Order: sequence, then C-alpha cells, then structure tokens
Amino acid sequence: MSLQIFLQHQARVLFSRTHSLKKYYPVAKLLELKTQLGGDEGRHQFTLKTAKGTRDYNPKQMAIREKVFNTIISCFKRHGAENIDTPVFELKETLTGKYGEDSKLIYDLKDQGGELLSLRYDLTVPFARYLAMNKVTNIKRYHIAKVYRRDNPAMTRGRYREFYQCDFDIAGQYDPMIPDAECLKIVHEILSELELGDFRIKVNDRRILDGMFAVCGVPDDKFRTICSTVDKLDKMSWEDVRSEMVKEKGLSEEAADQIGQYVSLQGGMDLAERLLQDAKMSQSKQACAGLTDMKQLFSYLQLFQVTDKVVFDLSLARGLDYYTGVIYEAILTQTGPVPVAATQNGAGEKAEEGVSVGSVAGGGRYDGLVGMFDPKGRKVPCVGVSIGIERVFSIMEQKAEASAEKVRTTETQVMVASAQKNLLEERLRLTAELWNAGIKAEVMYKKNPKLLSQLQHCEDSGIPLVAIIGEQELKDGVVKLRTVHSREEIDVSRAELVEEIKRRTSDV
Amino acid sequence: MSLQIFLQHQARVLFSRTHSLKKYYPVAKLLELKTQLGGDEGRHQFTLKTAKGTRDYNPKQMAIREKVFNTIISCFKRHGAENIDTPVFELKETLTGKYGEDSKLIYDLKDQGGELLSLRYDLTVPFARYLAMNKVTNIKRYHIAKVYRRDNPAMTRGRYREFYQCDFDIAGQYDPMIPDAECLKIVHEILSELELGDFRIKVNDRRILDGMFAVCGVPDDKFRTICSTVDKLDKMSWEDVRSEMVKEKGLSEEAADQIGQYVSLQGGMDLAERLLQDAKMSQSKQACAGLTDMKQLFSYLQLFQVTDKVVFDLSLARGLDYYTGVIYEAILTQTGPVPVAATQNGAGEKAEEGVSVGSVAGGGRYDGLVGMFDPKGRKVPCVGVSIGIERVFSIMEQKAEASAEKVRTTETQVMVASAQKNLLEERLRLTAELWNAGIKAEVMYKKNPKLLSQLQHCEDSGIPLVAIIGEQELKDGVVKLRTVHSREEIDVSRAELVEEIKRRTSDV
Repeated sequence: MSLQIFLQHQARVLFSRTHSLKKYYPVAKLLELKTQLGGDEGRHQFTLKTAKGTRDYNPKQMAIREKVFNTIISCFKRHGAENIDTPVFELKETLTGKYGEDSKLIYDLKDQGGELLSLRYDLTVPFARYLAMNKVTNIKRYHIAKVYRRDNPAMTRGRYREFYQCDFDIAGQYDPMIPDAECLKIVHEILSELELGDFRIKVNDRRILDGMFAVCGVPDDKFRTICSTVDKLDKMSWEDVRSEMVKEKGLSEEAADQIGQYVSLQGGMDLAERLLQDAKMSQSKQACAGLTDMKQLFSYLQLFQVTDKVVFDLSLARGLDYYTGVIYEAILTQTGPVPVAATQNGAGEKAEEGVSVGSVAGGGRYDGLVGMFDPKGRKVPCVGVSIGIERVFSIMEQKAEASAEKVRTTETQVMVASAQKNLLEERLRLTAELWNAGIKAEVMYKKNPKLLSQLQHCEDSGIPLVAIIGEQELKDGVVKLRTVHSREEIDVSRAELVEEIKRRTSDV
Repeated sequence: MSLQIFLQHQARVLFSRTHSLKKYYPVAKLLELKTQLGGDEGRHQFTLKTAKGTRDYNPKQMAIREKVFNTIISCFKRHGAENIDTPVFELKETLTGKYGEDSKLIYDLKDQGGELLSLRYDLTVPFARYLAMNKVTNIKRYHIAKVYRRDNPAMTRGRYREFYQCDFDIAGQYDPMIPDAECLKIVHEILSELELGDFRIKVNDRRILDGMFAVCGVPDDKFRTICSTVDKLDKMSWEDVRSEMVKEKGLSEEAADQIGQYVSLQGGMDLAERLLQDAKMSQSKQACAGLTDMKQLFSYLQLFQVTDKVVFDLSLARGLDYYTGVIYEAILTQTGPVPVAATQNGAGEKAEEGVSVGSVAGGGRYDGLVGMFDPKGRKVPCVGVSIGIERVFSIMEQKAEASAEKVRTTETQVMVASAQKNLLEERLRLTAELWNAGIKAEVMYKKNPKLLSQLQHCEDSGIPLVAIIGEQELKDGVVKLRTVHSREEIDVSRAELVEEIKRRTSDV
C-alpha cells in the first residue's frame, strides 16, 4: 500500500470514528482534526455496498447457479446450438429505437471522449447486430450473459438491474414453425429438468393480435399502445385494462369490449381452428396467416409431446417492438416459495392452480430485426427464447434453504492432514503428488494445525476423505485414509493412494 | 416490428441508398426526401461495429475459449477453490485510490440520477470489497469475469478494452508463504496444461524493492514513481530506464546506478541468501524480511517441484499500488506464434530463448487492501494470481489455425435425416425421442431437404452419425445408422438406437 493511500485510509477510519466522539469533543476541535486528515476523503462516510439493484453471488449461490447453468447449457447443446459472446456494451446507436418505451431503462456510459456507449439491454439486439455485421444467414446459437436495465429493482422477487439471460435463437430461412416448435420444446425440457413445479407456456402471434385489433376497430396508430395495455393482463384485472384503454388511450367502449371477448379465450389447436371460422377474425388476412401457423405449430408440438403445458392464449402480448410472428411466455403456476415435496412429486397439487409467480421464459419470432442492421436491409428471419434465470435462481435458493441436504461449494476429494507436529513439508509434498495426479486436494496453510481443526474443516465443507500422515506412516510408506462420515480408517500404500481416492470418490 | 420502427428502418435503408443515387437526383430533391423520411435517423450513416477495443467471439473462438476455461477452472477446483461473482460495475468511490496512475483508464457510467458508478478495472478490488462487506476472513476463491480498461487497444497482441480475468486468491491469516507458494504452483500447472510453450515465472517482493530503493538512496516520496519506472524494464532497455529516473524523475545518478546493479540480478534461493549477506541490503529491515520469506517460498516451491520455471528477479516491479509482499509475473519465452511442433514436444528449442511475448499471469500479496474497505480497518491478508487469458486465447487461436484438426463448434452426436419426401413428421418424432433420451441430435428445418445437403451439414460441422429413415425403415421398425467418415451403414432396431448411438459416440 502506498503511503498516500495508507494516509487516505487512516483519514477515512479516523473520520468515521469521530462520529462517536462528538459527545466528547467540541465541533471546532473536530473540524480542525478533519482538516488535518485532509479534505476530500474525509468528507463523506465510506459506503460499503454494491450498486443499487445488483448483488454479489457467494459460493453457495454460485454452486446453485453452476448447477442451473449446466442444466440449461446441456439442453442447448443437445439441440445442436453453437455458442457466441458479444461485448457488454454496444455503440449507443445500436440500441436506439429497438425497445420502444423501455429505452429509458438503458444504462449509458459517460462520454469520456470517443464513442458513445450503452450497456446491453438484452442479448437479442446484439445478436442481430452480430448477424448483420458478420453476414451470417444461418445459425443456431446460445448466449448466456448479463444484461442491464435501470428498472425499479425488486430483489426479493428476483428483479435486478444486472441479471443473466440465457438465450437460444435460430436464424435462417426455413419452413414455417419448425424452429419455433423447437424453441418451445426447449422451454419445456429446461423447466421440467429444473424441477421448479408445474408451469404453463402461453403462445400467441403478433399477427393474430394485430388482426384482432383491426377487426375490433382499433385505429392503426393505436395498435402498439393498446398492445402494451393488453400486455398488463397478467398483472391487472380486465376491468382495469379496459379502463386504461378507454380513459387513458381514448379507445371506444365498443372496441374495448370486443377485444375483451377475444382476450379471454384460451385453448389449443381447436381454438385456432374456431377462430379461423370466426366471422370477424377471418376478415383479417394477418390474423388468418397467424392462425394457420398456430395450427401448424400445435401439430409439431404434438409430435414433440409438449402440448400438455402449451396454451394458445389471446391475452398474451409481449412488450418488445421487434416481434413479428409467434410469441410465447412461460409461467410457473405455483404461488410463493415452491414446496419441496410438491416439486419432487412433479405435481404441486397443494398450490393454488393458475396463480402466476411471474414469467420465467419468453421469446418469439423477430424477422425484421437483423434487416434493421444490414446496410442493404437484407432480412434474416429469427426465432428465439430467453430463460429468465434470476427468478429460477431465487426459487432454487429457497429450495436449497428448505432442504436438509447441504450445498457443497467445492469439489475437494481429500484433505491431507497430520496429527503430529513438524510435518508441514511432508503434507505439502503429498498434496503436490495428489494435485499432479489430478486429485482435488486441500491442505491447511499452518505449520502445526490441530487434527481436530483439520477434520472440522472436512465436516464443514463436505470433504469426504482425509489422508493422514505421521512418522509411522512415512516410515511404512503408507497413508491412513479416513472416511469422514463413517470415521473408518485404513492404511493404503502410497503407490495405491491415488487409485483408492478415485475409487472412493467416483460418484462425487 | 412497430410501424414507427419500420419507417425509421426504411428511412435508414433508403437514405443509405441515396448515396448511390446522388448522380441521378439533384441535392434539393434528396434533402426533401430525407425530410419526409424523418430527421434524426437519417442524419448519419449507420455504423455496424463493436465498440473500440472490444470484439465478438464467434462459435469457433467460443469453442477454444471453453476449452481454455475448462483447463483453468479444473485447476482452481483441484486446489479446493470456491467460486464467487460480483457486479460488473461498482460504486465509483469503491475503485477510487486503488490503482495509482492507472485510475484514468477506468470507465465511468453516465450520471443518470442515483449513484455514481464505474465498470470494474480488475477483480481484486471488488474481491476485497466483498470480503470487507461480508466480514469474510477466510476464503480460497476463484472468479472468472470480464474487466474494463480505457487503454489503447492492441488487439492483434491480445490487448482489449474488455477482457477476461481468471483470478484465484487466498484470503486469511496463515503461516508465511504457504498460500503464496500454492499460487505459483497453480500458475505452473495452468501454463503447463495449456501447452503454450516454455515459460518463466519471475518473483520478487515489494519489501525487497522498497528496501533496495532505501539503501540505494531513493528519497521516501519517490519510491512509487521510481518503482513505476523499474516496472518498464520488460519493455525498455536499462539505459532508457536509467535516463527516465535521472532526467524525468530527478533521481541522483549514483542512486540510479546502484539500482542498476541490483535489478540485473536473477537467481533462486541462493540469490536470496547472498543478498541477506549483502552489506547494503542487509541494512534494510524490510529487505531482510522479504529475503527471508523469499528463501522460505523457494523451499516450498522445491517441494512442489516447480523451481525449474521460477526465477527470483529483482527487476520485477508490478505497477499496482496495493501489493505489500511477494509479487510475480509469468511470461512465455517464445516469440510470435507458437510453432505447433515445438509445443507438442513440450520444448520449443527453435524459438529464441528468453524473448518475452508478454505477461500471461501475474499477482502477489496485498495485505492492506481489505482493511481499506473495513470500517474498523480490520486487515485480511490476501495473496492471489490473475491469468491474463486474452493473450492465451490469441495463441490458442493461432495454434488452431495452424493445426490440421478442425475445431468443432457443436457436440451434436447424430443428424436425423431422410432420403424421401413427406417424412418431416417422422423425422421430428424420432428427433424428439432422441432428445428425451439425452442424445444430442439435429434435424433440418425443411419439409423435404435433399439427403446430400443433410450429409453435407454433417461433414461441415463434424457430426459423426446420421440416423436415416425411409418408408421401408419405418415399416421394419429400424433406423439406418450411417457413420459419416466411413460411409458405412447398418440397420439398428428402433429400440436399440439410443444405446447404439451412445456406444459409438462415447469418446465424443
């Protein structure tokens, strides 16, 4: 530490102490002391926190996060996806005009000379920029990275300003609804494997929504704003949504009521067929195209055996501007912390059916976005899904808390220990032997640690084995291998130690 | 896509087209057109690039990156490390006063109301903040994440403004030099396993440097600035360094020459012993403490069998302010792209010995940093190492380019294909069966793809097997399983298909 920094630090410590000294010293004396300690650094008390809406992950949280990511990445790889990465910030103009009203939530970097930059808001727009920039017309890729939104954080509900997105997208010109069906299959697989309890995947189509607005008499220039209001149906009652449409957005009562009839509809392929026959809906070409594709989508979903969880729901209207076709959103249908017993049964009968704890995945088709970046406007049709992983983490953490099983934060197989003094060098030598053989091993950084504290560390961190050496073991060329949970000990020859450790920890 | 965005987009496309139209239309006409298309969006041409000093990773680069990360993470886990994560930005004041002259390279976020934030400059300061905030006094952790520096990028040499650091640190009050030795062992393991060619790990100690400056007659207030100049010895000749000390920094010629004699020294434990006897050096208590620890360090490094690569080098002076004890830096000793043959031999005899291609790892002890964040100034001694992974990526990429072996970007085991028409549904059904059994499978998103194009995709992306179905196979309840490289085909019963694919791809 440099002298200057040391002094700044001392100033800070001393100044924070002065608060408790106020009753003993007069203010003038304190001010003099503060001046001696040197201006700026002493002026405010040091704030020890992370930025608003962000958090650290401790080792236990990271262990859970790693498990969740492994499940998700395995699924993406099972579907043949490649992996890409893009920078955390983009040119500001790259993000401009892509997020509608949400643009105000974008974090900008300070202008320190050079380019104007913003932190990425999602992974979809950088993906589209990547495709256009590299002239990629076909790719199936996943991207797992943090995104940034200056939103009102609600951290207990898993809403942060810095959070992970896990995105899977298929870009390319293909026959209708096949990649779209695969995205839904992926959501089904991931949510099933994570054992978060029961879930529903709502599906709709931008074209069906727009067609519906048209036939209900919504003026063209009100489509997007009425769509935003419909989007609130998962949080607001129909009465409130209707009132916002009519009173705030100036829609006629007749149009609102007609919309109300449609957005209450839910079903499957049958509903798509019925609406294709509907006197009003069938007047819209857009709606018919969307409904025909919806039928096709459900036929593929039947082949994939996922129709048990998928609902065609006319009230689903995702906010982002760039969607052009099918849209979807997955919700968990249980309230509050997931009861461990219920999720283990894969059911959740006790939980209130149909009450949403929020969206855990969402996505859709965006055929126009890449073209917005291409100098010649060449289009690359895309469809994708984003797993809202923070909410999943929250649930998994609650499950881990409720569970009797301890979360291990290391994978250490063996602790190299000794009961006697002056054996540090022998412990280090043996530990290095084990490391070189690929064994995950730990050793205490003390010259003469107590055996009890070495064993205690194993108990605390779940290390299953202890390799104990003493004068006698060294003379005999053996190691005493102790199993922590049973306290059983056997002598193993030094030459066979590595194999024996591997054998005993093969399930770790 | 909303109407507004669509129009903006069209404006952009049309405006970019107008450039080629200039010869046909008068300027006035063009300006009128531009105004119709709506001001702002048309004003400048769209820039399709990533921010300066940053880059995308394509799937091939990601495959290499994943391999490198796996090697590094395996090593960290072998040494019993836990994993943590911290936000990409910190309160600005958290970073203030930690980086000396480098502070000017910190990226600040724009003040959009609320807290003043900066992107993290390294992972060490956030780690210290984490320890103080959570009152952690003992932890061995790794952290792999991106850090940000507004430096002059030199991307061909692997210097970026956004880059990964892979940090391993040990915090806690332990007996001297044991954790320090483990950090060096880790660097040795990682650089050996990555097969980057020969390397050296230079070691020194802040206390030895400071003691040396004292006995050479450097005034107390010039320690840090003279240290910065010594730090340039890996890029500048001694003559230039001497000249900077004397002419720019006002050091006496005698002091500079005495420093010159010391900083030319390299060795091992023997050098530490010699300097402990050195008439001048032995006058400094600080230097003696550092030299005694250096001897101890080398004795542990001998037990770890890594002294072949470690050099005690008095010219090593790392720039960061927060180091208090041992410091180290690993360099590759080969020039330019690593010849594949040389690294495969593990040697590199043909490369010029001793010419550095730059540091690939560095670190040291920082016993005061956590205390700077603790309101009561409580100290937590720390030592750690950071792997400079971007340079490693560059080398691995060059090796991959030079190698005949193709880098696979997916792990797909089998492609579900058909030679006949109208079998899309059957292909989808079989693919879903394979996914549900955990097989990594792909299928073409076309109703009637050509068999040749399905086989071509396997060749291109290295998929080893094709599961072909036709009318006859469906009737017989079999699948034709084709091995791509040998073109051999056998009929496998549908019930045995999963096991057969697993058996044939068990080495994938």
